[in-house]
Amino acid sequence: MKPLIFQTDFGYADGAVCAMYGVAEMVNPQLRLYDLTHDIPQYDIWEASYRLIQTITYWPEGSVFVSVVDPGVGSQRRSIAVRTRTGQYVITPDNGTLTHIKRMCGIAQARIIDESVNRLPNSGESYTFHGRDVFAYTGARLASGAITFEEVGPEVPCESVTELPMIEATLEDGCVSGTIDVLDVRFGSLWTNIPRELFLQLGVKHGSRVEVTISSDTRTLYKNIIAYARSFADVNVGEPLLYINSLDCVAVAINQGSFAKAYNIGTGINWRLTLRKAPRVVYE
Amino acid sequence: MKPLIFQTDFGYADGAVCAMYGVAEMVNPQLRLYDLTHDIPQYDIWEASYRLIQTITYWPEGSVFVSVVDPGVGSQRRSIAVRTRTGQYVITPDNGTLTHIKRMCGIAQARIIDESVNRLPNSGESYTFHGRDVFAYTGARLASGAITFEEVGPEVPCESVTELPMIEATLEDGCVSGTIDVLDVRFGSLWTNIPRELFLQLGVKHGSRVEVTISSDTRTLYKNIIAYARSFADVNVGEPLLYINSLDCVAVAINQGSFAKAYNIGTGINWRLTLRKAPRVVYE
Amino acid sequence: MKPLIFQTDFGYADGAVCAMYGVAEMVNPQLRLYDLTHDIPQYDIWEASYRLIQTITYWPEGSVFVSVVDPGVGSQRRSIAVRTRTGQYVITPDNGTLTHIKRMCGIAQARIIDESVNRLPNSGESYTFHGRDVFAYTGARLASGAITFEEVGPEVPCESVTELPMIEATLEDGCVSGTIDVLDVRFGSLWTNIPRELFLQLGVKHGSRVEVTISSDTRTLYKNIIAYARSFADVNVGEPLLYINSLDCVAVAINQGSFAKAYNIGTGINWRLTLRKAPRVVYE
Repeated sequence: MKPLIFQTDFGYADGAVCAMYGVAEMVNPQLRLYDLTHDIPQYDIWEASYRLIQTITYWPEGSVFVSVVDPGVGSQRRSIAVRTRTGQYVITPDNGTLTHIKRMCGIAQARIIDESVNRLPNSGESYTFHGRDVFAYTGARLASGAITFEEVGPEVPCESVTELPMIEATLEDGCVSGTIDVLDVRFGSLWTNIPRELFLQLGVKHGSRVEVTISSDTRTLYKNIIAYARSFADVNVGEPLLYINSLDCVAVAINQGSFAKAYNIGTGINWRLTLRKAPRVVYE
Repeated sequence: MKPLIFQTDFGYADGAVCAMYGVAEMVNPQLRLYDLTHDIPQYDIWEASYRLIQTITYWPEGSVFVSVVDPGVGSQRRSIAVRTRTGQYVITPDNGTLTHIKRMCGIAQARIIDESVNRLPNSGESYTFHGRDVFAYTGARLASGAITFEEVGPEVPCESVTELPMIEATLEDGCVSGTIDVLDVRFGSLWTNIPRELFLQLGVKHGSRVEVTISSDTRTLYKNIIAYARSFADVNVGEPLLYINSLDCVAVAINQGSFAKAYNIGTGINWRLTLRKAPRVVYE
Repeated sequence: MKPLIFQTDFGYADGAVCAMYGVAEMVNPQLRLYDLTHDIPQYDIWEASYRLIQTITYWPEGSVFVSVVDPGVGSQRRSIAVRTRTGQYVITPDNGTLTHIKRMCGIAQARIIDESVNRLPNSGESYTFHGRDVFAYTGARLASGAITFEEVGPEVPCESVTELPMIEATLEDGCVSGTIDVLDVRFGSLWTNIPRELFLQLGVKHGSRVEVTISSDTRTLYKNIIAYARSFADVNVGEPLLYINSLDCVAVAINQGSFAKAYNIGTGINWRLTLRKAPRVVYE
């Protein structure tokens, strides 16, 4: 019996998530159900992909994630199940939801869900709720051991798994550059795709000052020098800081404020952040 | 040990729901607790009733739902427990929360909660939190087998269960007419009470065009011809569609938009939707 | 195996809470996880403290609460674990989160978390997510019996636990006076720190009328006579009432309205509420 973790863009206000729980409970009452989040912005596949990579490695081998952000429900998009290189499973529409998993964690094996056997019996004439009828049902059967991974359906090449466009962080001419992937929603921090290891090649250490430039397409929205802090408590309330976030990547925040709101910063591959070691200023 | 599912209008922001969990855990730590939703709009008995019918049949026999939307707490309204014809239990104030269950699923037996025995010991001088002191406590005891359904309290006639006014969908002169019962909150779709079987008597099939009229009291808010689609993916992004929802009833939506917001559509028995097979237009 | 209950100001929208669940599941898959709330307003230690006292006594002995509202993460603030006089545990930054527990429930023993042993292995270079790496991990190990309370770390005097300033409710010259501690968020009721026992010394009973004065600093925002009701159902819809809330303290509300919004009332020790038995008016 493995844990089963749900993620959707359904919100909690209606009964959709509860119907998924019920299907799982019907499959096996011993299952342990968890929620990643149901507040993914509607149709935002990128954010669904990011929330998976943010959490999946904190779960034991064999854990089954069911992620349903599915603007193409009812189209020819594939229903897929993968095993990651770290041993967890993800079941999802194959629409880009696995982008970060594929790039950063690695996919060991991918299978198309065979809906002729892996579909809630008597799920009727509705074609709009695969989350309940296909994904929750199949996830619950996999997590409970009612089916093996092989019984999900036929194997397909891992390379065939759909990816959204991504831009890797780079180091060039003493500048590290990356994209703003996501916000730490409640606190307005910017989370980038710049790994700590790459950033440290600038030769900075805690307490160093870093020039931070943020641009969207051709506009520059922020250019300033801020401290590289171990943690929020190292700077004053209201002061900006650069730090290593809980995914081991560079993040930028305002202590007890919202950086994103302060400077109208958004997310996605058009939002770029560039870092340079700031010159040391000596007053004489 | 049966699953215990909570629904309230308390929200998650304060400790009320957590106190209900704690009471259940005290009754029996082996209980499996789930949430339907705690975001029912305050005092909205109609929506509480709808969310129950939307989910209850996806849960196994013996499951116990505790629904607390209770504007009349402390009044003479009865505290009731019912067994549905499909074998689940619902425990709730008898204020109309069972309307859809009674009509669409059927009530097999109804009992008044005897609060002289079924009330959290030492629950003090507070008369405002029956959700914790009566409903969660009794639901937990029923789900865990500490009491039988008979021990909840004396039986009353099923017909005595309070109902909110409802209007049935009808077919007349080639027009199907029904009410807009509820929104698919996050996606702004309109969910009607028109069953698929009744709708299909118009002689439409997937790809047919249907004239949709929406009115509130005497005002007409929408009149247009839209496609009957199998699923969202059959129409363009931004295009309206008519489809069969996950409750096997007619729904109307805009693909990746909000129909409700686009045309200011509300819900309730004053909101009517009328469908007619659209004439076939041939350009010569 | 004891229940493990989480409270944070992280919200549900990102993966932070799910990473905490995963850490707990890794520690022991038999653990039963619950949420108090994750919607504490950001950095609002006072509200975190209140939500704990509001719920903790409804949980069995040995239950472990993990509360993470942590504006000082990365500072020298202590990480602490306490056993309450009623036998539950709370693990939290020692920043005032235990204020109400210490005052109203009592702390039997306090220990500093020894992070050299009680920290998620390989939790890397991030100093910003003690909720996952220290608090959830240690809470899960304590709740599952992997460590004893003694093994959390060295004991410290209970008196050393950090408290936020509080003002006790008083009775003087026939007036009971207290602070507005918190709102019943969804319903806009005011919850005060005035215990029922103190209030009843005014000689009022259900149906009596009470003069209610609300002031913030030197401004008076409300002064009116309202009924002391057993419950909301005793007054008309839209009518104000004074009642005893589910914590056995005085609360003020508008039946099916929001008192807080109607009169712009806030919370905290600057918000004072004063009660006086109203004179009996006889029309002749």
